[in-house]
Amino acid sequence: MTELQPLLSPRSIAILGASTDFTKVNGRPLKFLLDRGYAGRIFPVNPKYGRIGGLACYPDIASLPEAPDLAIVAVPARAVPDCLRALGGRGAKAAIVFSSGFGETGPAGRALQEEAVAAARRSGLRLCGPNCLGLVNAFEKVMATFGQYAEGATPPGPVAFVTQSGAFGTAIAALARRRGLGLGYFVNTGNEADLDFVEVMRAALADPRITTGAGYLEGLANGGGLMALAGEALRAGKPIVLAKVGRTGAGARAAASHTGALAGADAVFDGVTRGGGIVRARNEEHMLDIVEAFACCRLPEGGGLGIVTQSGGAGVLIADRAEELGLAVPVLAQSTQERLREVIPGFGASTNPVDVTGQFVAEPALLRDAVRVVLDDPRVHLAIVWLQLMDAHVERLLAIFEEVARLVRKPFVVCWVAAPERALEGLRRLGIAVLRGAEPAVDACAALVRFARSRRDYLADEHARAVLAARPGAAPAALPGTAGAMPALAARALLESHGIATAACELAADAEAAVAAAQRLGYPVAVKIESPDIAHKTEAQGVRLGLRDAAGVRAAYAAVIDSARRHDARARIAGVIVQAMARGEVELIVGLKRDPAFGVVVMAGLGGIHAEVHRDAVFRAAPVTPAEAERMLDELRGRALLAGVRGGPPVDRAALAGLISAVSRFGVATGPRLESLDLNPVLAGPDGAVAVDWLMLLS
Amino acid sequence: MTELQPLLSPRSIAILGASTDFTKVNGRPLKFLLDRGYAGRIFPVNPKYGRIGGLACYPDIASLPEAPDLAIVAVPARAVPDCLRALGGRGAKAAIVFSSGFGETGPAGRALQEEAVAAARRSGLRLCGPNCLGLVNAFEKVMATFGQYAEGATPPGPVAFVTQSGAFGTAIAALARRRGLGLGYFVNTGNEADLDFVEVMRAALADPRITTGAGYLEGLANGGGLMALAGEALRAGKPIVLAKVGRTGAGARAAASHTGALAGADAVFDGVTRGGGIVRARNEEHMLDIVEAFACCRLPEGGGLGIVTQSGGAGVLIADRAEELGLAVPVLAQSTQERLREVIPGFGASTNPVDVTGQFVAEPALLRDAVRVVLDDPRVHLAIVWLQLMDAHVERLLAIFEEVARLVRKPFVVCWVAAPERALEGLRRLGIAVLRGAEPAVDACAALVRFARSRRDYLADEHARAVLAARPGAAPAALPGTAGAMPALAARALLESHGIATAACELAADAEAAVAAAQRLGYPVAVKIESPDIAHKTEAQGVRLGLRDAAGVRAAYAAVIDSARRHDARARIAGVIVQAMARGEVELIVGLKRDPAFGVVVMAGLGGIHAEVHRDAVFRAAPVTPAEAERMLDELRGRALLAGVRGGPPVDRAALAGLISAVSRFGVATGPRLESLDLNPVLAGPDGAVAVDWLMLLS
Repeated sequence: MTELQPLLSPRSIAILGASTDFTKVNGRPLKFLLDRGYAGRIFPVNPKYGRIGGLACYPDIASLPEAPDLAIVAVPARAVPDCLRALGGRGAKAAIVFSSGFGETGPAGRALQEEAVAAARRSGLRLCGPNCLGLVNAFEKVMATFGQYAEGATPPGPVAFVTQSGAFGTAIAALARRRGLGLGYFVNTGNEADLDFVEVMRAALADPRITTGAGYLEGLANGGGLMALAGEALRAGKPIVLAKVGRTGAGARAAASHTGALAGADAVFDGVTRGGGIVRARNEEHMLDIVEAFACCRLPEGGGLGIVTQSGGAGVLIADRAEELGLAVPVLAQSTQERLREVIPGFGASTNPVDVTGQFVAEPALLRDAVRVVLDDPRVHLAIVWLQLMDAHVERLLAIFEEVARLVRKPFVVCWVAAPERALEGLRRLGIAVLRGAEPAVDACAALVRFARSRRDYLADEHARAVLAARPGAAPAALPGTAGAMPALAARALLESHGIATAACELAADAEAAVAAAQRLGYPVAVKIESPDIAHKTEAQGVRLGLRDAAGVRAAYAAVIDSARRHDARARIAGVIVQAMARGEVELIVGLKRDPAFGVVVMAGLGGIHAEVHRDAVFRAAPVTPAEAERMLDELRGRALLAGVRGGPPVDRAALAGLISAVSRFGVATGPRLESLDLNPVLAGPDGAVAVDWLMLLS
Repeated sequence: MTELQPLLSPRSIAILGASTDFTKVNGRPLKFLLDRGYAGRIFPVNPKYGRIGGLACYPDIASLPEAPDLAIVAVPARAVPDCLRALGGRGAKAAIVFSSGFGETGPAGRALQEEAVAAARRSGLRLCGPNCLGLVNAFEKVMATFGQYAEGATPPGPVAFVTQSGAFGTAIAALARRRGLGLGYFVNTGNEADLDFVEVMRAALADPRITTGAGYLEGLANGGGLMALAGEALRAGKPIVLAKVGRTGAGARAAASHTGALAGADAVFDGVTRGGGIVRARNEEHMLDIVEAFACCRLPEGGGLGIVTQSGGAGVLIADRAEELGLAVPVLAQSTQERLREVIPGFGASTNPVDVTGQFVAEPALLRDAVRVVLDDPRVHLAIVWLQLMDAHVERLLAIFEEVARLVRKPFVVCWVAAPERALEGLRRLGIAVLRGAEPAVDACAALVRFARSRRDYLADEHARAVLAARPGAAPAALPGTAGAMPALAARALLESHGIATAACELAADAEAAVAAAQRLGYPVAVKIESPDIAHKTEAQGVRLGLRDAAGVRAAYAAVIDSARRHDARARIAGVIVQAMARGEVELIVGLKRDPAFGVVVMAGLGGIHAEVHRDAVFRAAPVTPAEAERMLDELRGRALLAGVRGGPPVDRAALAGLISAVSRFGVATGPRLESLDLNPVLAGPDGAVAVDWLMLLS
């Protein structure tokens, strides 16, 4: 965090345009700093005043007694570049620009923003904003903000929260405060003209007092930076939980009109970040539920969920949600069940979920023992304890939980519906996560399980990843100089040389050559038009499948050439590709595309109807190891197909994963001239996976 | 509500086993009744006391001065039947049995429960429970409960809440209270030995002070009753919102171990209730969000959502969720945009979502005018207004919302994140629904839209439904006397006579007869084994498709007979069915099954991979009108297939819906001997829909 220390933990702060009116944007930070007891030096700057709030006020930047670490800039937009130049000249290290009227307003504002950035960069001054609320470092009482969040208490804690949105971020921070969730850092990055979300989050996570990162994103330019940070966070065991808006078409349109920055298709963001172990939250409450669990719980060593309730129905609700999220609700071991029967009165169920019934009110030890016994089960890795109301028994229950927390090693969360306020406060004081409903509790547990698994996978993959990084594959020597679709045979040679299996085929310039090729390849064959001007052969009616003899091939040749001419009279036609019909149990699509935020991303999806109707595809940043490629397959909604349909044999997952990994390495090796690659379909069966058609576009 | 008035609104209440210890189960109801000022007569019954709580106490039932409307029974389980007999003899009308130790404990308890019901029924005494917390009628202060909910305030309101679970129901009621959501009725039905969820809900909804029903279900026996009630509720415009646990396999297993009652497969419950206009909630908070919106809002006249926020990001989040739930976020009319530009400062976006920015704090009229203008747009039918924090401006904002509520006719909800407590209270006092987050707000709006649409559909369908009810179709004259799979040709004749299109076919007893049949039907044909002992022909390898000539038919005949013998040496073989190969764009499955809760249900789903991998099927209670059948198609996740794949033509939806409706009528007409019917596949294309294979099982 050294480089951003002047921003996040400054030893001195200058406030440009400081005001004696503490209700104003340029008056509030000084009031907050004084009220909370910031220990560093504060330099108000304003020619109108001699002193503000008991401090000496300086007429201008030049007259400051020393170079401030940080300057708060709350002056009109047009004055900002000059301010930054002066600050740089005076030796300031960082500035937070509250002022709006920059990139968010249009071309003139964008130009002004660029001028401001250029002014700052000349002296190495780092910039937060403009158009931002600033930041709070709750440890050192750095209240460099005018936002509403600072009006209330800002207790320090293990969570760093970085938000691109000021208004929404403030609301989230206020919700965190209501839960007693301490935000060590609250930073609003605003327009991110210089410092962006990733750099700020990295610096905050580097603070050893921070265990969990939380972020609110509206757009992302630096996807590669985010993924590098995600890797560091996995290694450090510090989860990053992100809420990003723009999940759907409607949302993305709204986001585009709002921020002008868009992380490409949301499915790419979703898959790539999941691959990096980032936990994505649906909304603000979901994010805080997960963050609370991370802030309080050890990481579980597996995905088996134990459930202890005082209501059978709540147990069912929890089991429902667990199944939806892929968490196991294991049947308890025989020995566990026997121990539970000793603990729980006869009429409670002693399978999982475990219903202790209302009886525990009379016998508090019952709840304590049930939780302990369930967490002792070897198949259980974490637990949810469900309670409701219990106004009259809060102190007794707190004592039980204190004991449980001391006695167990595995993580658990409490779900206490309609909990009395002092129950929530008490549990949080004990460092126990407490959620407001069954589903939020399961959602939080699922996030714990997922991050823990991502971390194990990441560490297990370390060697394979290092190998990939060291030898991403030789860059292809012979990319043609021309842009557009690469000829099928040349593309095939390239793919094969990178270890990507493709179906055998030949180019035939006339009908008799096609027949001869079919003879060599073996019937049945397919015939496909080959033209640099026809990328989508099926749409041009340029494909004939399942041809069984020479007559069929001749007829198909004539037909596809004819169709191609009709489709585009000026298309250059090289002939037809003759290809042996491949067989496979399952059709997939594997491909590469260039994402504006993340660079080369690899995609694996189910083909045919699945692609069209269900858009069942998973993305990752390239390259991926074969193990990661297998995990991509596990995320397909239609993954059951890969295990065999209607009693058929399972497909060769290793071969399929190998192909996906090879494609991803090819994408990285080929470099920026590769626009996209589509292997569609890839046919996967029990004996391997092979690409049957491919389209490679160069720029 | 006349029949259950003695239960829900008794003029007098006897408390059997009344205790002077007001902390006990048999002491608490009396305390609650006295404290809240129940105006009816109260008769404690206990030979140990002369007076309790200032009231005369009676030694036994016989000595009561009059027949009580309602008796609260809090005596040991084994004494309950005698109590009920005595109450019946004394002329009591209803009893609430708190006692546990009945059906929930095992065979002996079940026998005791049956004895209790028999005792009650002899005199027409209606029974709530046993094993229940009782009920609260908040209007008349009927505190016939010992539950925790009654410990706090129980303000009356337009919501009737009926719960099968005591513990979870209490938690939900407490959460409702915290939101200021008045529960006119709170009823826990417990074991439902006599009165069930449906009867109680019907009686509560009949109260004109109740506008909204809310229910928590763990199992349901009386599905037909629920659907009849749903129809009444649609006509009355009173929504029923249900949370039912047991959505997944894991949840259903947990529910089975808990309650022993299961509403059949959850997908059936989901589809059938949706078809009845019941709004299903995922969990307790989701239910209360929706109930709050119903309690406060008029029903919208369409599904166009207007969004007014002070944060662009929140607008995106709302638009995301709206798209996920199928709500339109319409582009605003040009005239609306022009009006908005007059209202909103230049830098706010004036499309939908509308961002009024923080500026409205300085100019409150801005928010008011923005909401009015957006709701004025003809494409907007309801709106969400998003705010955050604003501690310093609560009073001003409340004044704005009071004005808005007075000025607009279309419904709107407020989403106020991290709202100050007095803001929530103030809005609720104004009768405005206020949700805690963007997603809950959209979820609530989606429920408003869905119920309003269900109601319109229901009323529009009234005539068609009446026709169906009057003429469900002639019962088939000729059901064979034997159980099991009906012969294919006989089944076909039956289906065709009920207007269900099937592919032409013939039965052939030997190979040459098969060839002759194929000639008549026209090649290509399919050959399928026909045996009363082989229901699943494909699994028995008893099907050959796409046969193009006589040789193929002969070979297929031999092959399927051979396979059938291998599959089951003792199978009686009638020969083979020869069938013309039908063509269709999309494969579907249409069927009937007998559900333990709902009776005959009709299913429509996508076939092949969709059925196996995605379980993409929708259920309804039979019969359905063609319009309702079309709505079933609209609920398929893969519905896009019906609109045409890869540029293909759309299927004939009217024909398909007609077939589904005909199947549903057939199911009702055929009566209880029909176990199930599977039309798999039904091939649908631009020219119609035809069943290609069918399996009809009789009992």
